[in-house]
Amino acid sequence: MKLKAIDHIGIAVHSVDAVKETYRKAFDLEPAFEEVVEDQKVRIVAFAIGGTRLEYMEPTAADSPISKFLEKKGEGLHHVAIAVDDVRNVLEHLKAAGFPLIDEAPRIGAEGKQIAFLHPKGFHKVLFELTSGE
Amino acid sequence: MKLKAIDHIGIAVHSVDAVKETYRKAFDLEPAFEEVVEDQKVRIVAFAIGGTRLEYMEPTAADSPISKFLEKKGEGLHHVAIAVDDVRNVLEHLKAAGFPLIDEAPRIGAEGKQIAFLHPKGFHKVLFELTSGE
Repeated sequence: MKLKAIDHIGIAVHSVDAVKETYRKAFDLEPAFEEVVEDQKVRIVAFAIGGTRLEYMEPTAADSPISKFLEKKGEGLHHVAIAVDDVRNVLEHLKAAGFPLIDEAPRIGAEGKQIAFLHPKGFHKVLFELTSGE
Repeated sequence: MKLKAIDHIGIAVHSVDAVKETYRKAFDLEPAFEEVVEDQKVRIVAFAIGGTRLEYMEPTAADSPISKFLEKKGEGLHHVAIAVDDVRNVLEHLKAAGFPLIDEAPRIGAEGKQIAFLHPKGFHKVLFELTSGE
């Protein structure tokens, strides 16, 4: 049940191209990778910083969860993803301990990793993602 | 000007004691340290995860910047602190490149580190802190 690392920090934005321009100008830094995650209807641009990443997400459709977030709160910090050994084990423990979950079982995220989101109301309004696997 | 690591993620909460209870119950995890930062009028409880930290901040006074944040936005993700070699160098570069800064020069933060906050309006509404030193 050990929390191994901060895998990434997710940030909601209107335009990942604008973010690339900002990082070029501010830090002379290019993205570690870019990808479209069809399942979550987002285009992601990720910057590697030490062992973790800042992942900027732009919605690719009006019904993307990120579209809703941008409408309600505007651009900004969205979630924190924590690497664990086994997402399913942690979910089972949290469920037994009474924590509210968004995903009751792991699903497959970017790069084939197992992921699950915990409900922010159990964690002081922070949206945590758990991730495991290569 | 290299971004070396995510030093910590700052999270605003009403009660750090409640957070300690959450982490104990959810992850069997105790804080790496606790401290009061008089300058910023916050009580901090920090959890070490891999090479970075989640730092929960509770205001110790009504005029704490965190009191204002909680009033306006409620609990949640507040800032991301990035370790760099030299805060002053990065500030000078950003200033020359036209980025808006909250701190025009480094100041002394927790553990005697040099710190400075960048203005969120230059970075897609994310509040970044730069930090350098031991």
